[in-house]
Amino acid sequence: MDNIKAAELLERLLSQEKIGELRGALMMMNPVDIAEYMDTRETDRMLRLYRLLSKDISADVFAYMSDEQQQKLMESIGDTETASLISDMFVDDAVDLLEELPANLVRRVLNNVNEEQRKTINRFLSYPENSAGSIMTPEFCEFHEGVTVGEALKYLKVHSVDKETVYTLYILDPGRRLIGTLPLRKLILADEDTKVETLMNPTFLCAGTLDDQEAVAELVRKYDLMSVPIVDKEGRMVGIVTADDIMDVLQEEATEDIEKMNALLPSEDEYIKTGPFTLAKNRLPWLLFMMISSILTETIIENFEAHLSIAFAACIPMLMGTGGNCGSQSSTLAIRGLALGEISPSDALRILWKEFRVSLIVSFVLALLSFGIQKFVFSREVAEAAIISCAMICTVILSKSIGCTLPLLAKKLKLDPALMAAPLITTIVDVCSLLILVAFAAMI
Amino acid sequence: MDNIKAAELLERLLSQEKIGELRGALMMMNPVDIAEYMDTRETDRMLRLYRLLSKDISADVFAYMSDEQQQKLMESIGDTETASLISDMFVDDAVDLLEELPANLVRRVLNNVNEEQRKTINRFLSYPENSAGSIMTPEFCEFHEGVTVGEALKYLKVHSVDKETVYTLYILDPGRRLIGTLPLRKLILADEDTKVETLMNPTFLCAGTLDDQEAVAELVRKYDLMSVPIVDKEGRMVGIVTADDIMDVLQEEATEDIEKMNALLPSEDEYIKTGPFTLAKNRLPWLLFMMISSILTETIIENFEAHLSIAFAACIPMLMGTGGNCGSQSSTLAIRGLALGEISPSDALRILWKEFRVSLIVSFVLALLSFGIQKFVFSREVAEAAIISCAMICTVILSKSIGCTLPLLAKKLKLDPALMAAPLITTIVDVCSLLILVAFAAMI
Repeated sequence: MDNIKAAELLERLLSQEKIGELRGALMMMNPVDIAEYMDTRETDRMLRLYRLLSKDISADVFAYMSDEQQQKLMESIGDTETASLISDMFVDDAVDLLEELPANLVRRVLNNVNEEQRKTINRFLSYPENSAGSIMTPEFCEFHEGVTVGEALKYLKVHSVDKETVYTLYILDPGRRLIGTLPLRKLILADEDTKVETLMNPTFLCAGTLDDQEAVAELVRKYDLMSVPIVDKEGRMVGIVTADDIMDVLQEEATEDIEKMNALLPSEDEYIKTGPFTLAKNRLPWLLFMMISSILTETIIENFEAHLSIAFAACIPMLMGTGGNCGSQSSTLAIRGLALGEISPSDALRILWKEFRVSLIVSFVLALLSFGIQKFVFSREVAEAAIISCAMICTVILSKSIGCTLPLLAKKLKLDPALMAAPLITTIVDVCSLLILVAFAAMI
Repeated sequence: MDNIKAAELLERLLSQEKIGELRGALMMMNPVDIAEYMDTRETDRMLRLYRLLSKDISADVFAYMSDEQQQKLMESIGDTETASLISDMFVDDAVDLLEELPANLVRRVLNNVNEEQRKTINRFLSYPENSAGSIMTPEFCEFHEGVTVGEALKYLKVHSVDKETVYTLYILDPGRRLIGTLPLRKLILADEDTKVETLMNPTFLCAGTLDDQEAVAELVRKYDLMSVPIVDKEGRMVGIVTADDIMDVLQEEATEDIEKMNALLPSEDEYIKTGPFTLAKNRLPWLLFMMISSILTETIIENFEAHLSIAFAACIPMLMGTGGNCGSQSSTLAIRGLALGEISPSDALRILWKEFRVSLIVSFVLALLSFGIQKFVFSREVAEAAIISCAMICTVILSKSIGCTLPLLAKKLKLDPALMAAPLITTIVDVCSLLILVAFAAMI
């Protein structure tokens, strides 16, 4: 059944107050879908639905709800129940939630959870945004050397560890330093009396709490991991980051890059939920930058007006547009290549040489077409058409060189390469292409 | 130890022919890193290293190597050994490899694997590119109703199923239709005599072999799945897609969208490995389109030259640039919102209304600044500066409306929204902003 039909059914059952059937219907649904449905309901209906959820999925549903609905629900159910809900959540989900709440609500929640949970949550809240620490969960299965397979399995059964995080077991030394990892599948296949340390993999990948989430995501993606252990500055293991969170990081980081590459300040909020003032605030910086820098192009045109025949003036948009697109093509490939780790600043010369050859091919084709258009569509003189084509060739070569170089330079200077994209490149190329045209025009 | 140091060590051991130590060093390395190292070696060194790999990781290392190195290695080791290597690989990796090979090599490989494998591989090769079928693996653990937990565990032990794909078990009916899924962790916690069907989850998510890989990726990401079962047209389960493959799909699809949004034809090959002719071929279509459409702007400027004072002519780049950036901002948010499922074409009116309000704020600020620049930097007359500001306001409103509408329209028409990005929007907005300026200029 698709989500729209499911929503209609829930709606009908809610209106008819068929509690038993509602409960049954909810049991058939995925927590993500229930949360999505509850996100669109009024507070009282949402609360009634929430009360019908079975205890084992309510924290899960809650974790998937939107920030605003979570807040509304917490205000409706009161502090004690909120605290117990937070206790049932994975720590990373709880921390995500608390980060979005107003400070007074956070204080009230923390006052109602137990001492140990408060400590854990406070520690997690202190990790910087977008760090590995901020997306990890402290819930993982750890064992010490000397434990046998039988004992480990018994422990898992007794504590009924029923979480996805159980698929890799971590072997720690007495100082809580990670000494090996052991996939659950190996544990199941092994003999009961085998010691875990003889089965474990002593070479493993791990990341630090302060590492950037993007680097952790790249690690997990590159090595096809299901989870990666996170260690603190002292080398003690403090949590894991799982593949499902990594998928969200990959999407988030791609969105952020796409936004930066298109003259927007990156935003973590959904477009549809963001107000016009915030949207305007994210868009104005690049637009203002562009407008102020256009003082340059305007000055050039004004000062060289005498040299610019109507033919040259009329082809300015074409030259600038082509230069902008050429530069943005090269910078896009460089930025994405850097983000995926396919290229590095040390490849600069190789890339420049490649871009130069591409420029020659591209500009030759464009110059030929441009000559044809100027000569036959606009009946320009051969000299004029030829000069426009020459300006075109120089513009393409220059903009491709700038386009591929700036992102590499940014990376080298530890700046964000994604900022060296179309908006900036276009602005630079606009000025350059105009100067090239003026220089050629001045020659005749 | 980082990868550069590891590479140096291997290099030294190779030169000194210290076989035992080499073997030991390789044992400590991750297959991904070994593959990365072998990718940069000459054929004979690569072959010598390959011979030193232990049998249980050689197929894994091979799967991570680049297409060219894989081919070189296969040519060196001969058909029989290649066939046995292919047999050791996961079917999805083997299929990925065969898809890139020249037809005669594929035939030779297929002649040397056994009948059953040949059939499976041929079936997989027939799934369309970018479909769920093309990225799935047929290796999953299936059980039928009536099997007990004890029997299932024994089966896993006896067949020593040591693969990541073991973490979800699939319960099929006699017609091979999927009736439920059972996480391995539940199996371990359960009583030996329990029947699998009493533990299984009868509501599960699945995808079809012909579904687009992007849709499958979104399913896995949204519902935080570790793998998703894939069924054929008749509803029979034929494979699974795992989270590690989904991470690659997410990266690939983001790259593709970024390329499309920046005037490039999408390419699956790494930039650094692509020749200048292919690169030029991927860049020319948009550049040619842009150039041909610039005939319009050139015609407009030529015909309305009489109305365009030097002030108006000089501010054309500024107007066009602002319009282009404004349009690209709106289209970027719409395209990404559609890709992430946050908005749909049915939100069109809401989005238009929001963009209209954003346009008012943005254009007011820009018009004010523009007025200041024209009046005080270029000492234009008040009337001229005011007209430029008015043209600016109209350009911003129009380009934001076009920018947000076109991607939604494309989605509605089942076209790719990512094509309605900066390159196309800029071209349209260039013409519009010029017409607006000319219209205002004609008024005085």
